[in-house]
Amino acid sequence: MFSHPDTLAAFAEYCEVLTVEHERLDLGLVQMMEDNGSILRPGTKTIRAAFDKLHQRRILSNRGFPVPAFSEVRGPDDLFDFSSAHGFPVVLKSVRAGLPGQRAVWIVENRTEALRVLAEQADRELMAESFQAIVKELVVIVARRPGGNSRTYAVAEVINQDGACLEIRTPAPIGHRVAIEARELALRLADELDAVGVLAVELFLTTDGLILNELAARPHNAGHVTIEGSPTSQFENHVRAVLDLPLGPTWANAPAAVTINVIGGLEGIDPANNLPDALVVEGAQVHLYGKRPRPGRKLGHVTALGDDMEQARELARRAEAALHGRRL
Amino acid sequence: MFSHPDTLAAFAEYCEVLTVEHERLDLGLVQMMEDNGSILRPGTKTIRAAFDKLHQRRILSNRGFPVPAFSEVRGPDDLFDFSSAHGFPVVLKSVRAGLPGQRAVWIVENRTEALRVLAEQADRELMAESFQAIVKELVVIVARRPGGNSRTYAVAEVINQDGACLEIRTPAPIGHRVAIEARELALRLADELDAVGVLAVELFLTTDGLILNELAARPHNAGHVTIEGSPTSQFENHVRAVLDLPLGPTWANAPAAVTINVIGGLEGIDPANNLPDALVVEGAQVHLYGKRPRPGRKLGHVTALGDDMEQARELARRAEAALHGRRL
Repeated sequence: MFSHPDTLAAFAEYCEVLTVEHERLDLGLVQMMEDNGSILRPGTKTIRAAFDKLHQRRILSNRGFPVPAFSEVRGPDDLFDFSSAHGFPVVLKSVRAGLPGQRAVWIVENRTEALRVLAEQADRELMAESFQAIVKELVVIVARRPGGNSRTYAVAEVINQDGACLEIRTPAPIGHRVAIEARELALRLADELDAVGVLAVELFLTTDGLILNELAARPHNAGHVTIEGSPTSQFENHVRAVLDLPLGPTWANAPAAVTINVIGGLEGIDPANNLPDALVVEGAQVHLYGKRPRPGRKLGHVTALGDDMEQARELARRAEAALHGRRL
Repeated sequence: MFSHPDTLAAFAEYCEVLTVEHERLDLGLVQMMEDNGSILRPGTKTIRAAFDKLHQRRILSNRGFPVPAFSEVRGPDDLFDFSSAHGFPVVLKSVRAGLPGQRAVWIVENRTEALRVLAEQADRELMAESFQAIVKELVVIVARRPGGNSRTYAVAEVINQDGACLEIRTPAPIGHRVAIEARELALRLADELDAVGVLAVELFLTTDGLILNELAARPHNAGHVTIEGSPTSQFENHVRAVLDLPLGPTWANAPAAVTINVIGGLEGIDPANNLPDALVVEGAQVHLYGKRPRPGRKLGHVTALGDDMEQARELARRAEAALHGRRL
């Protein structure tokens, strides 16, 4: 349906306001809908910044936001110009947001590796970015209403494994000053993009400070922790924002909250079969998405609150292990 | 569909387990389904005790549970025998659970009033109960799995106005000993009735101690407070119990929680129109059921947690007043 302009236009006729679930959209269609008078929240400006990373880097670097050095890569020459200026390793990226599970980032150490990626990904638009010395990966979830009223949740730390998000910890174990800086950066970014709804701002904390990684113009995995962790979840605040209703409180319900993603293992075990073992872990909240298990596929997540991070992690890890038939 | 045996039986064929949303059912049909091998949770025994109050009083008084003095009322003679033995006022009740909003209890002060109710309600089966000197109305929500594993939530105090439940406060402001007694009574009752799922046990705290008022074999208005007030809501624990999964924790998320029902006023105001004003009350959670407003109709509820009861009440009352276009 997303690809049929007439169907989409007819659907929009019935809607007072429209929102999106992800940013992998046909930007021409999205723009057409806004031009036709549909109210899209977030609008084309925000969706485009999340979808087209080159465009995003261009507008945000122009406005002084901390983005890595970057360059369009139309061929080997562009890439070698970039590596001459910034050195290896170079981060090669797909310009357009990819499908979930689709690889979209390659860290290349030299010219040979770079040429191989360029050849393999010849059908995709690529860009280059300077490699960052990452201390932590952070996410700030912002909810913003039309007109600019906005709120952020506690900064989350994201732990990745094999390129996929494994664990989310809130509040991120960072200093107060960095936390405030991260939240202010996210708010300014939401203003800059006229974001409406939830905007997830992925940041790198590097040895040189905060740098913008990616944007998502929608509720985000790192915000699932808000279902139990805050009085108003990211989903509720997304809907409130899109409907231009007052935003709900985003404070933390407990001193620490941890979410662990339930990722399909090589054995092909269906975590749903182990649900009873996970539910006995008191204080862990199990969310299964009803998907068919496949190695590496995100099948659900588990959240636990705690008086401190260790307690919350311990509960979440026990429940997650139980879903995989393991005992900690 | 509830009244067509064939449709119901065909539907049950597709179900591993069935549950019910209320107890106003055709008991013959319910029994037929169990006889046909369907797994009903709660089963006929529990549903009948909630639906047929005379039957309930009989079995429970036989097992020593604290129920008021009671008698079947087939006509004036039965009633006068009862009032001679127990004096006026007498509580006249419909034997069968009525529809929501349908009057099912009459407190009569003398023979003339009694005869009037008997004449007006000639088409309903009635029973008489002794009048209680009520200090507080309490509700204990029990969740119970097949086999008997069970949990209770904090005892709730219910505040009625004009015969309808207006406000729920947890924990009920009662002594520890009474609270323990109430929870134990509710657990014993759930065992006695082989209840599976949520059983709501309505109690009167009288000057003579606890007396059983009504039973509901389902999630209950007094348990809505558990949505925000406990890690596992009554709804989740009902489903867990019915599916024979481990029950989730029922502890309190905050020292106090208050739910205020949103009742349609005489002015016919639709609270949905005032939603923005209610949502600005930070910490109050607004639930509207999408029903058309009608005087006296329950249209939603508001819950607030607090560090103490006054704080929680204050928030819930402000949000509820805002829904009615009032400002406290």
